[in-house]
Amino acid sequence: MKKNITSVSIIGTGNVGWHLAIALFKSGIEIRHIIARSSAKAGELARIVDASPVANFTDIIKHPDMYLVCVSDDAIPGVVDIIGDSGAVIVHTSGSTGFEVFTHVKENYGVFYPLQTFTRGNEMNYQEIPFLVEGDSKKVVEMLKGLADTISGISREADSEMRKKIHIAAVFACNFSNHLAAVAETILKESGLEVDLLFPLMKETYRKIIHIGPLKAQTGPAARNDTNMIGSHLDALVDFPEELKMYKILTDNIIRYRKKQNE
Amino acid sequence: MKKNITSVSIIGTGNVGWHLAIALFKSGIEIRHIIARSSAKAGELARIVDASPVANFTDIIKHPDMYLVCVSDDAIPGVVDIIGDSGAVIVHTSGSTGFEVFTHVKENYGVFYPLQTFTRGNEMNYQEIPFLVEGDSKKVVEMLKGLADTISGISREADSEMRKKIHIAAVFACNFSNHLAAVAETILKESGLEVDLLFPLMKETYRKIIHIGPLKAQTGPAARNDTNMIGSHLDALVDFPEELKMYKILTDNIIRYRKKQNE
Repeated sequence: MKKNITSVSIIGTGNVGWHLAIALFKSGIEIRHIIARSSAKAGELARIVDASPVANFTDIIKHPDMYLVCVSDDAIPGVVDIIGDSGAVIVHTSGSTGFEVFTHVKENYGVFYPLQTFTRGNEMNYQEIPFLVEGDSKKVVEMLKGLADTISGISREADSEMRKKIHIAAVFACNFSNHLAAVAETILKESGLEVDLLFPLMKETYRKIIHIGPLKAQTGPAARNDTNMIGSHLDALVDFPEELKMYKILTDNIIRYRKKQNE
Repeated sequence: MKKNITSVSIIGTGNVGWHLAIALFKSGIEIRHIIARSSAKAGELARIVDASPVANFTDIIKHPDMYLVCVSDDAIPGVVDIIGDSGAVIVHTSGSTGFEVFTHVKENYGVFYPLQTFTRGNEMNYQEIPFLVEGDSKKVVEMLKGLADTISGISREADSEMRKKIHIAAVFACNFSNHLAAVAETILKESGLEVDLLFPLMKETYRKIIHIGPLKAQTGPAARNDTNMIGSHLDALVDFPEELKMYKILTDNIIRYRKKQNE
């Protein structure tokens, strides 16, 4: 087995496959095949990254150094069954699929999970993708780190357990934060106001998280334990009973975190 | 009364007073006095904005067009009592103090609330501060909008009720989002990982909120109603009982918002 990956074939043309194909291609990696059931999409991506579109694994003549499996979680086992023992390294890109999906593969398998959200049609800065890598051997881990280096230079070794924790943390920091912005939008709409009024404040909040860390950056009525203001906010949320419950539990937890910090 | 404010005196040298003094000074407004009990701080700020530091209201010889009250909420009534009827417009800068604080002032009062968080020592882009303004007359409202225009060009008229709703929305979108980043940090630490791994993903989350709006930008297991993944996350949070409760209530609300959208 070679020490560095120089050729990759991509399975799947969803958002992850699409962006990783382009990121690797731009980093000088040969993209040998784009493998997908939809030949239109495979053809479109293959043209961009100078690869051959392939609809069927049996049509592959020369294996690449690595297969990058970028299909939905429930489709990964089927793909692994077919090409797990091709001799090439096989790697999936899912944050939530464990290592046990490779149980029947003899060797040279791993995970190459980009900790980023991809949107079709959105030009991304590929230098800002941290990769979480896992391998069945030190050699595969080093190989995957090398591959991450060609794209972003940010990689961390993380086993399936750690990957799950990171995924949960991302749900809190990103999916749930997004929801809180949706709650803000809902509350503002009722007053005839637009959520974009809050964008400068949200930008500054994000900047402070990055520069001083979220624990130290915490401000607001809960952080000050300003019970008068908290009470007046709860009164004002009378027409939003579910949002009121969220307000309470988040406030309680901010106070709890503050106490822990001061212990 | 003049149509445009050309001179302002600032009461208070906390974060709001500090930054507004500099923002107004940079916009070409004359800062006449910096009024504060701490003469050291008043002197420091006065030097920066070419003003006179004043420790006592009785020392003021010539009133400015406007007094900008930037003291803590509980100190506002005291200040209003002393200078409410100086003849100058008097305006406070608090998001959570109502208009009733001016009950005993005859006329020419209002609110000039910057919807932004200020950090001492942090160079800010003053062009990114939306101002919420309220006045006892159309003339005062226009005057305050004009003042906002000299700083950022972003202002909205909002009465005390609306200001409270906006403040609650900001608590959700900013204070609570910050807390969720702190929760992410706490979960990651247990796995020996640092929260900065999530910064690129958080940045992209924020970018998507701004470009496509939070309701449409919602992704993640709750948005997909992926009950398997949600269950596996809840199992993994067994050592974090309070965070588990937050996970549940936020997930339930994302599902609820999705249903409302699809109705």
